[in-house]
Amino acid sequence: MHIGEFGLALALPEGDKLLFTLFVMFVAAKLAAEIFERLKQPAVAGEILAGVIIGPSVLALVAPSELTGALSEIGVIFLLFLVGLETKPADIFRVGARAMLVAVLGVIVPFVFGYAVMLAWGQTQIEAIFVGAAMVATSVGITARVLGQMGLLSLETSRIILGAAVIDDILGLLILGVVSSLAKGGVNYAEISVTAALAVGFTLLIIFVGARAVNRIRPRVEKLRVGQSYLVFGFSLCLGLALVATYIGVAAIIGAFLAGMALAESAEDTDMPHQAEAVTEFLLPFFLVNIGMQLKLDAFLNRSAIVLAIVVTILAVLSKLIGCGAAAWPLGRKKAMQIGMGMVPRGEVGIVVAQIGLSLNAVDAAAYGVVLFMAVATTLIAPPFLARLFKDEQRVDQEPVVPITPIS
Amino acid sequence: MHIGEFGLALALPEGDKLLFTLFVMFVAAKLAAEIFERLKQPAVAGEILAGVIIGPSVLALVAPSELTGALSEIGVIFLLFLVGLETKPADIFRVGARAMLVAVLGVIVPFVFGYAVMLAWGQTQIEAIFVGAAMVATSVGITARVLGQMGLLSLETSRIILGAAVIDDILGLLILGVVSSLAKGGVNYAEISVTAALAVGFTLLIIFVGARAVNRIRPRVEKLRVGQSYLVFGFSLCLGLALVATYIGVAAIIGAFLAGMALAESAEDTDMPHQAEAVTEFLLPFFLVNIGMQLKLDAFLNRSAIVLAIVVTILAVLSKLIGCGAAAWPLGRKKAMQIGMGMVPRGEVGIVVAQIGLSLNAVDAAAYGVVLFMAVATTLIAPPFLARLFKDEQRVDQEPVVPITPIS
Repeated sequence: MHIGEFGLALALPEGDKLLFTLFVMFVAAKLAAEIFERLKQPAVAGEILAGVIIGPSVLALVAPSELTGALSEIGVIFLLFLVGLETKPADIFRVGARAMLVAVLGVIVPFVFGYAVMLAWGQTQIEAIFVGAAMVATSVGITARVLGQMGLLSLETSRIILGAAVIDDILGLLILGVVSSLAKGGVNYAEISVTAALAVGFTLLIIFVGARAVNRIRPRVEKLRVGQSYLVFGFSLCLGLALVATYIGVAAIIGAFLAGMALAESAEDTDMPHQAEAVTEFLLPFFLVNIGMQLKLDAFLNRSAIVLAIVVTILAVLSKLIGCGAAAWPLGRKKAMQIGMGMVPRGEVGIVVAQIGLSLNAVDAAAYGVVLFMAVATTLIAPPFLARLFKDEQRVDQEPVVPITPIS
Repeated sequence: MHIGEFGLALALPEGDKLLFTLFVMFVAAKLAAEIFERLKQPAVAGEILAGVIIGPSVLALVAPSELTGALSEIGVIFLLFLVGLETKPADIFRVGARAMLVAVLGVIVPFVFGYAVMLAWGQTQIEAIFVGAAMVATSVGITARVLGQMGLLSLETSRIILGAAVIDDILGLLILGVVSSLAKGGVNYAEISVTAALAVGFTLLIIFVGARAVNRIRPRVEKLRVGQSYLVFGFSLCLGLALVATYIGVAAIIGAFLAGMALAESAEDTDMPHQAEAVTEFLLPFFLVNIGMQLKLDAFLNRSAIVLAIVVTILAVLSKLIGCGAAAWPLGRKKAMQIGMGMVPRGEVGIVVAQIGLSLNAVDAAAYGVVLFMAVATTLIAPPFLARLFKDEQRVDQEPVVPITPIS
């Protein structure tokens, strides 16, 4: 008998579509990761490329759907939760001012570059603004995964990148608010100010009060009868703050990251980081593959669109390198490059901005294709460069209390 | 910014529907589990009841959807994978003959009872056959979870239940094949024989050759460069065999269970059971809550339907107790009762049979509602009785190499 999706399809000897999707995505991701590791390239890039290959652009084995989107979102939420678990609030305070500068310049330069090139290309003003807004985005998950696999999340540069990504997301939210209002007619500054205040307030509240609140609640949580109560509490906090973040308008991953950070200190002596890692190990490939699957090569039938996509991608890389790099310049050239490159991937965040633009009729299908290409390409390009820029660093992350896998 | 489902919804300060669903289902399940634990009732029953309460029948906070169905399926697949990891093929051989008898009588008696009561109630022949087929089903996940939480999966009785559930699924598959063909017109015995041969062959192949094949492949898997290669291999095998199972027509959970069993010996000295447990801990609540959410109380507006639903549920419990109990009688009355009760939950498997009947127009909405009620009710009723029947047994399961949670 066949469980299916509790759906009505009579599927005796037909195979389960859900399982087919899961199996193909997971195995393709891991095969590609293996090949990339052997080529001494970061596994992350391989997993995204696997998505391009099995997705609609090439083999069309699997297409992006509500389901792959959902798994993808849960995957990246767990990744950021895990990264948060390894990041104490104090680690971020210490680099707060630098992270702020990196975020601000990393917003201004890409926006200006994106806006200018689209206008120069003869696109409409509103289209230029939306492409600029998409270039502001940072998909911190990609960089976090690369650095995490290298054991480098505790580096000062890694922490600046994480802090800057959080701030970048809030700034991006505000820009998107302004831009969306422009597309609809007028800008409601009062509404946008409220959103800004909520986003900043939420983030600061969790950073400043979260860890203390968690420490206070912990003894009560541990007294609960439900199995694995502290882990259950951790998962609930992760989902809960991710949800609250979306009500405010911040990305769900920011909420998950803050939840992890609130738990970081108290979970250190528990098995939670290790358990969250197991969940991430299962779910993250769906996130990476799903990004690759977004690529739509059929939007590039004319040469002008191809050239524009490549130009926009190059500018997307350069603008973060220049903006964030300049902000980090006092730390030395190498760190500046590391931080700049860490902010390059646009991934799912850039895609969402483009989708909003499309839904508001502010960008047409061609410009949407260009942004999609830029989002996927920056996400593919950054990991190999990151691996190179960070290759001389010593592993600094604490091993979890429990060894990751005794045998491999 | 907001990831959403990479969808087109403009969702600035609106909140993410996916995360709302996840959060409500997870937290409701765990709150109910806590309450049930305090009442000295099994958490499983609480989690299913949470589904009834937050589902369409009562609060309507969340409705069953493709997404909840998908999460549910992944959750129960991981559960059975985990159970398989704790079950070596030899454990099942040893009880094979007894399990076979339990399965066969556990199929015949419920089918006859279900068929007879529906005919006596004045329903059509084909409807009676479908209700009989739905009463054959066993949702082994529920029993496995209860016994697993009590640390009793290695008991002889637990192993008989697991073995019988696998055989029950194959028998149920064949019955469903015959019944579906009847509903469509004629029975194609050649096709059903092929299905039977495939299902039995697949199961025996994995049981007899699986573990050896895994042991032989292991050194090569461990040499792979991809991170956590053995865990990745385990997840892939789980998804892969679950998928193959559905192509044959067997339940995906049977494939996942067989994958776990093939890995049981070789994974013993690794962290895989512990990691699979973390994933299960996150995903299983969605399975349990989703079962509860299926209940549709609005089908019970007339008294006759209510009475029939209750009668069918009582017969569903009695028929497994009598059928499986009789088969296990030589082991003593207590074990016979334990085994009979272990086979009582119909859960998702019964629901799928009813859905197939509905899609073939073989059962009407009222009969469908009755089966749904029976499936959810047996799943809710069994855990408290199981907990009572097994309460004097000593915990026998090996603790995983790595402690489950150091702190709680």
